[in-house]
Amino acid sequence: MVVRAAVAGASGYAGGEVLRLLLSHPEVEIGALTANSNAGQPLGPLQPHLVPLAGRTLEATTAEVLSGHDVVFLALPHGQSAAVAAQLGDEVLVVDMGADHRLKDSADWDRFYGAPHAGTWPYGLPELPGARAALAGSKRIAVPGCYPTAVSLALFPAYGARLAEPEAVIVAASGTSGAGKAPKANLLGSEVMGSMTPYGVGGGHRHIPEMIQNLSPLAGQRVSVSFTPTLAPMPRGILATCSAKARPGTTAESVRAAYEKAYADEPFVHLLPEGQWPATASVYGSNAVQIQVAYDEAAGRIIAISAIDNLTKGTAGGAVQSMNIALGLHEGLGLSTIGVAP
Amino acid sequence: MVVRAAVAGASGYAGGEVLRLLLSHPEVEIGALTANSNAGQPLGPLQPHLVPLAGRTLEATTAEVLSGHDVVFLALPHGQSAAVAAQLGDEVLVVDMGADHRLKDSADWDRFYGAPHAGTWPYGLPELPGARAALAGSKRIAVPGCYPTAVSLALFPAYGARLAEPEAVIVAASGTSGAGKAPKANLLGSEVMGSMTPYGVGGGHRHIPEMIQNLSPLAGQRVSVSFTPTLAPMPRGILATCSAKARPGTTAESVRAAYEKAYADEPFVHLLPEGQWPATASVYGSNAVQIQVAYDEAAGRIIAISAIDNLTKGTAGGAVQSMNIALGLHEGLGLSTIGVAP
Amino acid sequence: MVVRAAVAGASGYAGGEVLRLLLSHPEVEIGALTANSNAGQPLGPLQPHLVPLAGRTLEATTAEVLSGHDVVFLALPHGQSAAVAAQLGDEVLVVDMGADHRLKDSADWDRFYGAPHAGTWPYGLPELPGARAALAGSKRIAVPGCYPTAVSLALFPAYGARLAEPEAVIVAASGTSGAGKAPKANLLGSEVMGSMTPYGVGGGHRHIPEMIQNLSPLAGQRVSVSFTPTLAPMPRGILATCSAKARPGTTAESVRAAYEKAYADEPFVHLLPEGQWPATASVYGSNAVQIQVAYDEAAGRIIAISAIDNLTKGTAGGAVQSMNIALGLHEGLGLSTIGVAP
Amino acid sequence: MVVRAAVAGASGYAGGEVLRLLLSHPEVEIGALTANSNAGQPLGPLQPHLVPLAGRTLEATTAEVLSGHDVVFLALPHGQSAAVAAQLGDEVLVVDMGADHRLKDSADWDRFYGAPHAGTWPYGLPELPGARAALAGSKRIAVPGCYPTAVSLALFPAYGARLAEPEAVIVAASGTSGAGKAPKANLLGSEVMGSMTPYGVGGGHRHIPEMIQNLSPLAGQRVSVSFTPTLAPMPRGILATCSAKARPGTTAESVRAAYEKAYADEPFVHLLPEGQWPATASVYGSNAVQIQVAYDEAAGRIIAISAIDNLTKGTAGGAVQSMNIALGLHEGLGLSTIGVAP
Repeated sequence: MVVRAAVAGASGYAGGEVLRLLLSHPEVEIGALTANSNAGQPLGPLQPHLVPLAGRTLEATTAEVLSGHDVVFLALPHGQSAAVAAQLGDEVLVVDMGADHRLKDSADWDRFYGAPHAGTWPYGLPELPGARAALAGSKRIAVPGCYPTAVSLALFPAYGARLAEPEAVIVAASGTSGAGKAPKANLLGSEVMGSMTPYGVGGGHRHIPEMIQNLSPLAGQRVSVSFTPTLAPMPRGILATCSAKARPGTTAESVRAAYEKAYADEPFVHLLPEGQWPATASVYGSNAVQIQVAYDEAAGRIIAISAIDNLTKGTAGGAVQSMNIALGLHEGLGLSTIGVAP
Repeated sequence: MVVRAAVAGASGYAGGEVLRLLLSHPEVEIGALTANSNAGQPLGPLQPHLVPLAGRTLEATTAEVLSGHDVVFLALPHGQSAAVAAQLGDEVLVVDMGADHRLKDSADWDRFYGAPHAGTWPYGLPELPGARAALAGSKRIAVPGCYPTAVSLALFPAYGARLAEPEAVIVAASGTSGAGKAPKANLLGSEVMGSMTPYGVGGGHRHIPEMIQNLSPLAGQRVSVSFTPTLAPMPRGILATCSAKARPGTTAESVRAAYEKAYADEPFVHLLPEGQWPATASVYGSNAVQIQVAYDEAAGRIIAISAIDNLTKGTAGGAVQSMNIALGLHEGLGLSTIGVAP
Repeated sequence: MVVRAAVAGASGYAGGEVLRLLLSHPEVEIGALTANSNAGQPLGPLQPHLVPLAGRTLEATTAEVLSGHDVVFLALPHGQSAAVAAQLGDEVLVVDMGADHRLKDSADWDRFYGAPHAGTWPYGLPELPGARAALAGSKRIAVPGCYPTAVSLALFPAYGARLAEPEAVIVAASGTSGAGKAPKANLLGSEVMGSMTPYGVGGGHRHIPEMIQNLSPLAGQRVSVSFTPTLAPMPRGILATCSAKARPGTTAESVRAAYEKAYADEPFVHLLPEGQWPATASVYGSNAVQIQVAYDEAAGRIIAISAIDNLTKGTAGGAVQSMNIALGLHEGLGLSTIGVAP
Repeated sequence: MVVRAAVAGASGYAGGEVLRLLLSHPEVEIGALTANSNAGQPLGPLQPHLVPLAGRTLEATTAEVLSGHDVVFLALPHGQSAAVAAQLGDEVLVVDMGADHRLKDSADWDRFYGAPHAGTWPYGLPELPGARAALAGSKRIAVPGCYPTAVSLALFPAYGARLAEPEAVIVAASGTSGAGKAPKANLLGSEVMGSMTPYGVGGGHRHIPEMIQNLSPLAGQRVSVSFTPTLAPMPRGILATCSAKARPGTTAESVRAAYEKAYADEPFVHLLPEGQWPATASVYGSNAVQIQVAYDEAAGRIIAISAIDNLTKGTAGGAVQSMNIALGLHEGLGLSTIGVAP
């Protein structure tokens, strides 16, 4: 089987990462590469690490260019995917790495994104209960946000086992690639090196409704989420520190057991041995998720921490993993559980 | 007035930082510099940034060497300060930058440090209500821990105004200098660059009882603290993200008002204008504290965030500030509110 | 004496740094702050580390705004200083931190900058032989480029003692602040962290004629310079590795002696003891220069290495040092030899 | 074909990197993993990024443990390989990633390493003229040093085409993993972040004779090397800036032509298009080499710059590439030309 894949938005970080992964995918052949402002330029200087594609030229992002592929990855700014997807036809697998098709509730979409809601596609977080069945054979995939990936994987066993109260408090640190490649003064190396800073504090981050959407069904009630993202001086990685009050009767053993059960058979999720803590460096460039959980008896809280690579498992790796499921391929093709460290 | 100051532990990070500050203090003359394993060595190669002291030689840490100074700064591993201080006499101002004399509750001390409790000295966080009065004229000062400094300053206005429920959830990122200068594999540059990792998760960090001790009196009841420290890829800085459920009736306005009132006259604490967020880079090398606060109505939580330099305001700057108060000098001598940025 | 100083270009890195230094200068009062595109905005969010100036508003860069000060610092893009200076009158000390007035040879200027040559002002590198005399009482100062500062200080003793052949080979690593604050994709944190990359290779860097201009008079003949700048993953600092073939008869002792003699009385230049090497971290935020020199007998070359902070000694510190000399103040006012480390 | 491989020194950086590569090598099965001080410990916490090997236990480094494999990789401190290799027999392919078997000249060995010379094995830099022939079928491979790899690849086309005078001047920046995993104070994250510093200046670095050995045969005469290594604030990567005086008649065209010819068919070496410069980030985790060359007519020098990942192409990737050749496998198995960026 040869899957011919196009990537729209190939000059950005998400587009570059999906190309990096597809280049080592044994069943994929890379077709058209498109961009907006960079259309017409060679890919080489824009993505100098993608040596085998150095001679390729970026085309304009049009349905004409993208049609005729088996899979189209959309790495576009939010609000642009629906129009492109509509022109591609139902025989093409469209993988939207942007936000447009993640949320089920149009009111949430309106409030956080402020544009017409494009609809909801099967959600590309295979580890969530029920997700694989929805992805199998699907021709449309909504890739989760990077923070919701890290947070949902950290917390869902606690909610799935009904160990946690429905008020989650989350502080996450992200590498700068999560903020994209468009030049902004606050993202200059001079500004971010040596600095930690929060942003979007107080309930305003667009990933919050997605977290609530993922966790509430498991909790059996609406989960509220207090979420503070911070920018860390590193190119990649998310470390999500998530906690919630333990429900009565919770013990360290019951917490551990819930996580061991949830992740016993997950190929990309590694519940670490007790005493070892997640580190973003350990999952650098890989699709692996490191998870650890603790029960703080004095504070009465469950603390679950996950580390992912925001560009891999958090974006492009999740996209490829979900594509594999949708196409009936082995779920791990083109993906690695081995980070590049130190 | 010339204050003659000795520093015990001059080859470490805390000792080096207090020397950096004392070198620009107009009323201080630097006397003996002592060390343990580095005794007998020149300071130059050990602290190459302290040019004016390059020719000085480290002496052994003995009462004989340290006596005869007006002030002695102890930058020693915990458990070593009490014995030294006992030999120094009441006429000497002893500033303990270690943990030995911070905690009031011997049971807390025993549980978290596991050694005989040395007692409690006036606490060197001048911004806490009542602290300046206790420091004035004192001959003994216990310098707070770096995390308790950042956390207490972030949260005390909320507790002082009785706006917050007594269960605080804190995630803090610290630069690596907080872990000291003793070589360990997990602190190598190769390991920490590009990585975020938690440690001491689940209630085990020694700074927790100190936070509880600071916040509970303001809250009028015992405050529980869930605290997760993380190691960030930067040499200096702490960003503390602190939250607690808002008590009924809290509004964004009442929260803002409480913080404005608390910090209206504090020379080193800067409550940022709304919309601007703390960044550790902005306080690099300075004694300034940046604070911002938000009320997340959907989650019902107050989120207060502080940024400090862990070595300056978090250790040596707080020590010098408290020394100034104890000696009746202007509180800001030798200290700056201006960070080195970018 | 109170010197009233204005800064044009106050929202950039050079402007911010000169303000950081002037804020602790005992004889300076800060007057007008101007900007181009940021005129009308408050300084606070643009330079969040400059707490005492947070409430100031940026004005437009006009002669009207800048006149009426004793000193005007120009931190402007090259080509803009001459017009402003011409309107300021001879009673005002104008310190040009840009390139416009550094070069003596109009042909060099034309070739490397491609604009009309504005003329030559006294050169603000006090450590160069003869420089202090030219600066004393001057009303115009051309602040050197950051690389020429590091390179000239590393090599001039070797050329002054006629120990080196007139072909210098230089490779320098610079922190990213040297590239300025204008947002560019290649300067994003995501791009620069974890990466070393050269630029301007092969003789094209604008600082080359300035190096040749500084070194040739000492060598007694025209010195050729091969210069490769590289961008390093750090906000500040220049490490310049400079070498030249040793002339016949050179020995390790003669090399050492030349450097010891050259820097015996220089307050900001620290020739390190043998065996200790310059590190940019040691001079972080300070006006100090660390220098070390070695004679590689097998290769027949003198290797001289300097470390400076590109924003301090390399730009704003050199500017303040030169201003002090021009005004007859103590040369070190407002400046420190103590770096912020670790 | 299944190649069974053992790794001695599996807890260090070189050992970890060769395991990372072997895990994705389609013809290799990983056998014994040994260590010295870490023998008896599980690999998981020591190499947390190597998830598939997390459950493996380290054994002692003995001939008994290592025998019975097809290939043994030795990632040992210098001076330890010969004794181990002698016990392994000629049927085992021994790949020495240390220094013991690189140098041909025993006097060089004695001078730079000061121990009995173990002898010389076929040299694992396949891109050097003649190297592949010597490696094919060999049962012993000496993997080059990381700096000699970067430098030899940058300069050999210039020497091979007799364009350069035999005096090379090299300044290289290396990531901290090149200094190993043994904890030392100067390698702490607190020390290296934000800092550039040289070491081994003046002709003392052990990699110099290896560079001379590689370049001299191509130049047809002994090449002298002035080499200054610097430590850069990044975990991985070497950027080598190499220059030499151009011989009479050299032109920009002749230089470019020499490099194009030398690397036309090399799968891992990428001579970049003119105007694009090597960056270590582009080769992060890959076996690729980026090269660019310029002719500085004013200075009369050829400047050749290479970027490699010191742990991959500079150590473990070169080892696997050479193993592939020795075993008659496709040279690129288990290796990638695609870096992990940003």
